[in-house]
Amino acid sequence: MDLVSFADIRDAARRIAPHAHRTPVLTSRNLNALTQAELFFKCENFQRVGAFKFRGACNAVFSLPEEAASRGVLTHSSGNHAAALALSAQLRGIPATVVMPANAPGVKRRAVESYGARIVTCEPTLASRESTAEQVLKETGAAFVHPYDNDHVIAGQGTAALELMEEIGELDLVLAPVGGGGLLSGSAVAVAGCSSKTSVLAVEPAGADDAYRSFMAGRIIPQTDPRTIADGLRTSLSPRTFALIRHYVAGIVTVSDDEIVSAMRLIWERMKIVVEPSAAVPFAGLLAGKIKLPCRRVGIILSGGNVDLDHLPWVT
Amino acid sequence: MDLVSFADIRDAARRIAPHAHRTPVLTSRNLNALTQAELFFKCENFQRVGAFKFRGACNAVFSLPEEAASRGVLTHSSGNHAAALALSAQLRGIPATVVMPANAPGVKRRAVESYGARIVTCEPTLASRESTAEQVLKETGAAFVHPYDNDHVIAGQGTAALELMEEIGELDLVLAPVGGGGLLSGSAVAVAGCSSKTSVLAVEPAGADDAYRSFMAGRIIPQTDPRTIADGLRTSLSPRTFALIRHYVAGIVTVSDDEIVSAMRLIWERMKIVVEPSAAVPFAGLLAGKIKLPCRRVGIILSGGNVDLDHLPWVT
Repeated sequence: MDLVSFADIRDAARRIAPHAHRTPVLTSRNLNALTQAELFFKCENFQRVGAFKFRGACNAVFSLPEEAASRGVLTHSSGNHAAALALSAQLRGIPATVVMPANAPGVKRRAVESYGARIVTCEPTLASRESTAEQVLKETGAAFVHPYDNDHVIAGQGTAALELMEEIGELDLVLAPVGGGGLLSGSAVAVAGCSSKTSVLAVEPAGADDAYRSFMAGRIIPQTDPRTIADGLRTSLSPRTFALIRHYVAGIVTVSDDEIVSAMRLIWERMKIVVEPSAAVPFAGLLAGKIKLPCRRVGIILSGGNVDLDHLPWVT
Repeated sequence: MDLVSFADIRDAARRIAPHAHRTPVLTSRNLNALTQAELFFKCENFQRVGAFKFRGACNAVFSLPEEAASRGVLTHSSGNHAAALALSAQLRGIPATVVMPANAPGVKRRAVESYGARIVTCEPTLASRESTAEQVLKETGAAFVHPYDNDHVIAGQGTAALELMEEIGELDLVLAPVGGGGLLSGSAVAVAGCSSKTSVLAVEPAGADDAYRSFMAGRIIPQTDPRTIADGLRTSLSPRTFALIRHYVAGIVTVSDDEIVSAMRLIWERMKIVVEPSAAVPFAGLLAGKIKLPCRRVGIILSGGNVDLDHLPWVT
């Protein structure tokens, strides 16, 4: 298996440039003072569809040869990847089908529909998702675009860290959340390609710590029964993402859901931006003192901002 | 009475430049599509202390002659102006006293304290505020900085619209909220100084519509018993702000609290930024169809982002 390279990320950046936002990097005196560091937040909550996922999906869709593309794309996802794939397909003018569990959040469902994708509902189990997707594949011949076990997706996700490094220059550390590992592995390749002086650390919810356990064990340990508010990070690593993470990532630390919610609320309150629980995970690691390096300049990937505003985790 | 001029706003811009953020102008494809216009949101929720108020307070504090400054500054305010004055005084290294009603929101109280100002508590009535402030003035000789009936404050508030016009160029319309009128009058002078082709319209909560009624009557009609969720806009116009508004503002429209809450929620959901109810008022006017001009390029001042995250108006 050829691993995703820095050149792949540069290609992805060129490919998605006409479609994706170059998101802003925000800073906060207040949060700098609180953490005794200089923080640079890469705001993928401002990305199209409200999450970094647009980068990977867009790169995958626009990488398809013409003939394959014409048969459309397909994914099974309950989250931001589904909306991202739907919008990317709409931009290329090809059909998209999304297999979604019946209990997917309304806001994400509506987003997918608003981009013109067809939704096929399944049971909220991995087995049902996969068999339903299989069925659609047989019927349509569509290209399956996995949310993270896909080289084009990984390369696309790496473009956020590439932009961060280009804009801010030398950083001591870049922090990213880890679920399936697409964002983390892409970011790690991008950072390594830009600077040999910048470490990449991952932060993961303690209630879905398969990446931490896999990293420690040296083999993939799948996540069973994840329990975390960070709904974007409940998935398991894949062979592609694990290989890159082992090679490029310095370490993985875990945070509790309480720490995630505190960090999320603080970002809203002090930075005046809306981020989803998964996006607050890296900052939670810093805030909870789980990251001990004496770092001065820290880049943080804020992965997305799609949250149910009617049910905020700190409002009881 | 000499009215605030465009030159005063340019002076203010130079004076506050070392201290204030040049806030970003954000756009949203989604909200453009919804309103059939091209919207440019000037994000004063990202300003220091979380609101445009820092601009006016900073200009007032740094305009004081050395000797007067040394005796400190004073205001009575339950809101963002208090935090803004406290931080400005801290930056100049002079004392600040804030007379605040006992029922002021905790988040605003803590902000004032965190900037090192002294809080003197009063009853939540205008009479108590004024007599308490009078008492402090006698004791300290501090300079009283009114939240809006002050030329330096008005000129400072105008710098947000000045930056918007400089950055975006020709706009057909600029929308601002109106409470005491400091932001509106400063914005109107700034816009008129930059372009003769750009109109300024104000939007006001129907439950605190003294500016609308004053504008129609041609004389100041004070607000009694304001009832609106937009807590920054419950105050009455002053002679200074009314004179400028009559001269420079094309019109005032009103919106209901339901319209304000809908607009606020939509900004959070689609733009992923935190704005306070008062800040959503101009967009509410547009969204509710209260502004009928066939406008294509519309600037909107988002006045601030200080909101109690534990009590969001759409969460029951």
